[in-house]
Amino acid sequence: MTRGLTIALDGMGGDHGPNTVIEGAEIASIRHPDVRFLIYGDEALIRPLLEKQPRVSQVSEIVHTDVSISMHDKPSQALRRGRKTSSMWLAIDAVKEGRAQAAVSAGNTGALMAMSKIILKTMPKVERPALAGLWPTSRGESVVLDLGATIGADAVQLVQFAVMGEAFARVIFNIERPSVGLLNIGEEEVKGTENVKAAAQMLREAELPMRFHGFVEGDDIAKGTVDVVVTDGYTGNIALKTAEGTANLIVEYLRSAMRSSLLSRIGYLFASGAFKALATKLDPRASNGALFLGLNGLVVKSHGGTDPVGFASAIDVAADAASADLLGKIVADLNLFSGYAEAQAQKETANISESEAALS
Amino acid sequence: MTRGLTIALDGMGGDHGPNTVIEGAEIASIRHPDVRFLIYGDEALIRPLLEKQPRVSQVSEIVHTDVSISMHDKPSQALRRGRKTSSMWLAIDAVKEGRAQAAVSAGNTGALMAMSKIILKTMPKVERPALAGLWPTSRGESVVLDLGATIGADAVQLVQFAVMGEAFARVIFNIERPSVGLLNIGEEEVKGTENVKAAAQMLREAELPMRFHGFVEGDDIAKGTVDVVVTDGYTGNIALKTAEGTANLIVEYLRSAMRSSLLSRIGYLFASGAFKALATKLDPRASNGALFLGLNGLVVKSHGGTDPVGFASAIDVAADAASADLLGKIVADLNLFSGYAEAQAQKETANISESEAALS
Repeated sequence: MTRGLTIALDGMGGDHGPNTVIEGAEIASIRHPDVRFLIYGDEALIRPLLEKQPRVSQVSEIVHTDVSISMHDKPSQALRRGRKTSSMWLAIDAVKEGRAQAAVSAGNTGALMAMSKIILKTMPKVERPALAGLWPTSRGESVVLDLGATIGADAVQLVQFAVMGEAFARVIFNIERPSVGLLNIGEEEVKGTENVKAAAQMLREAELPMRFHGFVEGDDIAKGTVDVVVTDGYTGNIALKTAEGTANLIVEYLRSAMRSSLLSRIGYLFASGAFKALATKLDPRASNGALFLGLNGLVVKSHGGTDPVGFASAIDVAADAASADLLGKIVADLNLFSGYAEAQAQKETANISESEAALS
Repeated sequence: MTRGLTIALDGMGGDHGPNTVIEGAEIASIRHPDVRFLIYGDEALIRPLLEKQPRVSQVSEIVHTDVSISMHDKPSQALRRGRKTSSMWLAIDAVKEGRAQAAVSAGNTGALMAMSKIILKTMPKVERPALAGLWPTSRGESVVLDLGATIGADAVQLVQFAVMGEAFARVIFNIERPSVGLLNIGEEEVKGTENVKAAAQMLREAELPMRFHGFVEGDDIAKGTVDVVVTDGYTGNIALKTAEGTANLIVEYLRSAMRSSLLSRIGYLFASGAFKALATKLDPRASNGALFLGLNGLVVKSHGGTDPVGFASAIDVAADAASADLLGKIVADLNLFSGYAEAQAQKETANISESEAALS
C-alpha cells in the first residue's frame, strides 16, 4: 500500500553523496514502484546520475539547492549554514509541508536530529524523540530504541519510547501485540536504576497494545527475546556500537584464520557459498535505516557510509512506516498511555482529598 | 614472583561445583608452582577430587564447611544463611585475616560482592568498588570497568574507576603508562552525561600515571583503542552482555552456514585447523576472571558456568594481581588523585575568600 506516497530524499547526504542516493532510490523503486521521490540537492550533479536510472528517473523530481551539510558540521554550524536552504533542511521541510510523507537522509546525524526537531517539532505529550533501529537477532530482527537521539531518559520518557517502539514493531514486523522489554542489568524487579524500575511499574499497569515482558539484559537483544528493546539514548548508543565493534572483531578473526594456511584457503573455496550466506546474515546494509520517533513527521537516518543497497533499505523503512500510518498509530497509543497517567494523577488527588477530609 | 603466595578458593561456587575448582587449580598449579591454596568447602566432596590431582594436592589445604551459597540465592538470603559459615564467606575472610593474598570464587556474583564489601570494606577514599574484566580486542586485551558492581557512578567515582583500572592494566599487561578512555556516545568534548564530562575534565587535569585518551565509543572497546575503558556499572554490564550476545549470534550464524551444504561441510574439514584457531580466539575462558577493585583485599569472580581451563584463568588474574602488589599501587595512585582533588578544593576556597575580600 505505497500508492500515492512521496518520499523526500536529501540528495547530498552521506559519505558518498548523490551517487549512493540515486542508485539506492533505483533499487527501492523496484520494490516500491508506486513511490514518488522529491530529490533535494545540486541539480548539476544529480540530473546526469538520475538520467542513467530507468525506473527512478520516471518517478522523481529534482529540487535544486546549492547548499549542503557536511558530515563534519556540528549541529549549530549546520543550522547556521543550512537553515531553510540546505538539501537536508528542504527534505525535512517537504514532510512538514505535506509534499512528502517521509524524508530520508544519509547525512550527519546531529544536524539531522536538530533540524528535524526544529522543523517537525515533537508530538503533543512526547517529551523527547528517540532513534529506533532494527537489530538482527536469532529470530530475525528486533526494534531497539533509543539509539542516541537524547542522553538519558526518565521513567515517563522510557514508557513513551516503549509505546513508540511497539507501534513501529507492529507496522514493520506486521504483528499485533509486539513483546517489549526494558534493558537492564538483571531480570529481577529489584535491580536497575530508579527510572527503569518506575518505567517497568507503569508498563505493567497501563493497558497498552503490547506484551510487556519486563526487564531484559544485553545478551537478550541478539537472542531476540523481545520484539522491542527499550533503553535511554546513552546506553542504547553504547550497546549498538559495542555490538558493531564485536561483530567487526569476529569477522577480522575469521578472515585471518581462513588465510592462515593452504588447507584453510582450500576449505574457504569449498565453503565459499556458506561464507556468502554468512556475509548476507551479517550485512549491516539489511538493517540500515533508523527512524526518528516522536516527531510530527517521519524522518529516516541512513548510515553515512552505506552503499546503494543500504540506502534502499532506509527507503524501505520510510515507505513501510508511511504507508502503514505509523504516526497515527503512535498518537493513538500515546493517548492510551496518557489516559492511564491522568487516571493515576486523579487517583492521587482523590487520595489526598480523602486524607484531608479525614483530617478536618 | 608468586613465591609465598596463598590463594583462597571457594570450593563450592559455580554451576559445576568442586570439580571445576579442583581441576582448575591443578591447571593453575602448572603455571604457578609456588602458589599455595586454601580450599573452603565440603571436605567429603573435595578430598577425593583433590587426591586425584598430583600437583595441587601437594600445595593445598582443605578447610571444611557444610554451608555453601546457591547460585540462585539473593544477596540478602546468602548473607542470612552464609555469614561466617559458608565457603564463600570463609574464602574472603582468609584474605582479610592475611591467611591468603586473594580469593577466587565462581559463585553467585551478588552474594560475592555483598560479602566482599562487608568483610574487606572499601579502601579509604574509595566510594564504590568496581568489577574490572579483561576484554578481547584487535590488539590483544583491554581492561573494562565497571562491569556491574554498582549502578551509576558520579564524576569522582568514574575517576576512581579510571585510577584503579589503570593500576590493574599496569600490573596485568606489564605496561608503564596505560592509555585510558571514558566510554561515551561521541568523541567530542560537548557530548555525554554531565558525570562523564566532569570526569574527563578531572582526568585531563590531575597528573596521574596514565595517558588519558579522552572519550571512546562502544566500538573502540573491541578495537583496543585504549588499554582501559571506564564506564559506570549499568552501562558496562549492558555493553558486556550485548557483546556476548553478538558473539553468540555470529557463531550460531557461522555454524549453520557451515552445515548448510555438502560443499560447506567439506570446506569445514579442510579448514578445521583455522576454525580451531578461531575458537581459541573467541574462547571466553581465556578472559575469565573479573577483579573487584576498591576493596581492602583482592577478590576475583570467575564465571559461574566456566570449566577448569576458565577457572585457572581466574586464578591467574588473582596470582598476577597479588604478586604485583596491585593493592599498594592502587592506594598510591588514589593518593595522587586525592592530592589533586584537595588542591582543587583549596583553590576554590581561596577564590571564595578573595571574592569575599573584594566585596567587603
